[in-house]
Amino acid sequence: MQEADLDGLLLFQPEAFRYAIGAPAGVATMWGRAGAAIAFVPADAGLALAAVVSDHALPSIRKSAPDVELRSHRIWIDTVDTTDAGSIAQIDQCYRRGGSTGERPETFDREVSFGLLGELLRERGLSEARLGVDVEFMPAADFAALKHHLPRALLTDGSTVLRRLRSVKTPVEIARLRLAANAAEAGIVRMVEAIRPGSSVKSLSDAWKSGAKAFAIGKGVSLSGSWDYISVGPDLSDANATVVPGALIKADVGTLVEGYSSDSARTFVYGEAPPLANDLDKILLEAFAAGLEQILPGNTFGAVHRVVTAAIRRGGLSEYHRGHFGHSVGGSAGIEEWPFFSMGNEELIQPGMVVALETPFYGNGFGALMIEDQFLVTSDGTECMNRLPRGLQKIMY
Amino acid sequence: MQEADLDGLLLFQPEAFRYAIGAPAGVATMWGRAGAAIAFVPADAGLALAAVVSDHALPSIRKSAPDVELRSHRIWIDTVDTTDAGSIAQIDQCYRRGGSTGERPETFDREVSFGLLGELLRERGLSEARLGVDVEFMPAADFAALKHHLPRALLTDGSTVLRRLRSVKTPVEIARLRLAANAAEAGIVRMVEAIRPGSSVKSLSDAWKSGAKAFAIGKGVSLSGSWDYISVGPDLSDANATVVPGALIKADVGTLVEGYSSDSARTFVYGEAPPLANDLDKILLEAFAAGLEQILPGNTFGAVHRVVTAAIRRGGLSEYHRGHFGHSVGGSAGIEEWPFFSMGNEELIQPGMVVALETPFYGNGFGALMIEDQFLVTSDGTECMNRLPRGLQKIMY
Repeated sequence: MQEADLDGLLLFQPEAFRYAIGAPAGVATMWGRAGAAIAFVPADAGLALAAVVSDHALPSIRKSAPDVELRSHRIWIDTVDTTDAGSIAQIDQCYRRGGSTGERPETFDREVSFGLLGELLRERGLSEARLGVDVEFMPAADFAALKHHLPRALLTDGSTVLRRLRSVKTPVEIARLRLAANAAEAGIVRMVEAIRPGSSVKSLSDAWKSGAKAFAIGKGVSLSGSWDYISVGPDLSDANATVVPGALIKADVGTLVEGYSSDSARTFVYGEAPPLANDLDKILLEAFAAGLEQILPGNTFGAVHRVVTAAIRRGGLSEYHRGHFGHSVGGSAGIEEWPFFSMGNEELIQPGMVVALETPFYGNGFGALMIEDQFLVTSDGTECMNRLPRGLQKIMY
Repeated sequence: MQEADLDGLLLFQPEAFRYAIGAPAGVATMWGRAGAAIAFVPADAGLALAAVVSDHALPSIRKSAPDVELRSHRIWIDTVDTTDAGSIAQIDQCYRRGGSTGERPETFDREVSFGLLGELLRERGLSEARLGVDVEFMPAADFAALKHHLPRALLTDGSTVLRRLRSVKTPVEIARLRLAANAAEAGIVRMVEAIRPGSSVKSLSDAWKSGAKAFAIGKGVSLSGSWDYISVGPDLSDANATVVPGALIKADVGTLVEGYSSDSARTFVYGEAPPLANDLDKILLEAFAAGLEQILPGNTFGAVHRVVTAAIRRGGLSEYHRGHFGHSVGGSAGIEEWPFFSMGNEELIQPGMVVALETPFYGNGFGALMIEDQFLVTSDGTECMNRLPRGLQKIMY
């Protein structure tokens, strides 16, 4: 923030709020509008974090983030503390006891929320501060209203600062991503057991999901989500495809632990692979290995893209062009997080980053092959979060 | 659009794109940025719909929406048609055959996408048109760039027009919402069978989900998602609560069919209910019935809020305030869709709307009770999409 000459960040995206404050932003964010929850991150690390939150989310946020200065606005949900009430009349008294009276807004009142933010900034002497806003999320309609509420502040684009902060993970974030990767891989093992002639994409997806879930439960964790892109055979968009001997089975999958998504991929073939699949697999394995060698602290993200592309060219695919060969992973809205292993990307690889390296080949009319692993960047290289062998695996029962 | 003096709508939100074009917007929308997919809806119904889409999503969108004028931009994913290729050299030829050569962007290139939109509007003589944009979604950073690309167009807020269009459903949308509601209710039936002393919130959630999924599969449909807010007992935020005799079990649930979410809720008690729960249930049932009587074409959404609030006041809760007692349902980003049954809402109820009416009571220290049903508004009233009895149900095995 100092480099970017910012006095602080104002964060409105639910995922950014959760990152900054350490607690979910609450149900009033469901419409994707700004103001349901706002995080203020001061540039001065000696000052307390602050947040504007809904009265509904307040108790749980206060519990998860006791050091954050909180202000709350009323949303549409009426909740009352009714402990010891034994009658309707006593419940009626409970409302007055809790001070929770008066009309509630249709959903949430953005003007009230922005007003609370303005007050907070005034009290901290920051009414004329230079503040970075996550304008890559914030709806244009809401940004106009925010400017009206903070007329003297200099509101600028805080997206790059936020992305840089998020790209280096904390130990808690690393643990979530490792667990998520392990669960996804357990799902792959279960999926492989389900591969039979006639197995459908759907049945493989179900097997993957149940293996991933079971692993998480064994670790005492409930997955907060999961996703899978599984293709079977030559038509990559055929959701009704079934396994036949020689068909490629590509599984690009991820599970979410507290909103943090893993990303990894493997390819299988039932029975003998067509020779061309083995040729492609060899190219992808070599490209992957070349890229992995470049994932070193101090190297650029662009260097990885360069060597992977070069290896694919050497393998004979002169017109294969891919925008990125991987990316950071984390708790963002999209599965793929900035920075990307993309052409000319000057961003530096740093210890504590968690990245996915991927070398896919999508051949419509032939099939897809893909290798993707997740890595923690360490002080002198990488720690792989996956264990299964990378190349095309033959399945034969 | 004529009323709002618009020549057309420019839609950037993935859910709005899918609504307008009839096909998913594609994977490049994962970051929530504008430009990955753009729908243009002309005010003149005689003119064709148009869209700017990724080259990756183009084939499937062309198939789903053959009458839409499509322009495409290249994204990071390299896919090649390799039919009949038997060697790496032949695959290399396939790229040239398909014309898909040249570098690809890191993710997608917003400038290219906005440029294509500009061209399209120029060709249609709309460079200086008055266009409604979904600025309640569109990130502020992207809106600034769009203005730069369409310097002579008058870009205005199209949100209200879009919401009004979406609030009256097509037969296809109604069928999705009915199926989603039926699946959610089948889940409730399965959940009830799983209620035992000691049943956890998690086990009830699992039972609900499996019942809903099984129902959908029986109809030949795969749910595109599901959500549940289940509470057990007096502590509404206790995710580890278990069923004990007399504990209230509130299930507010929904399933998604092709992105369209149902919304309904029921309350159960294992064994005998505390007398206060029966008293509250009576108030909620009466309030629900009063609200339902007001869901008539030509009546306002605000009228429903007024009579439900009045019924709750008559029941003795003078300080119960809820922002809305229900809402439209559909394929929006949030579960709850505009318009809401909220205070003073002058929006008119119309045939073809699908709405959820809800009368919840959240008493921390006591428990939650909730009634919620989904209705199709017909020419002379409503058709209920739920079948289970509304009041508090006793479970006793």
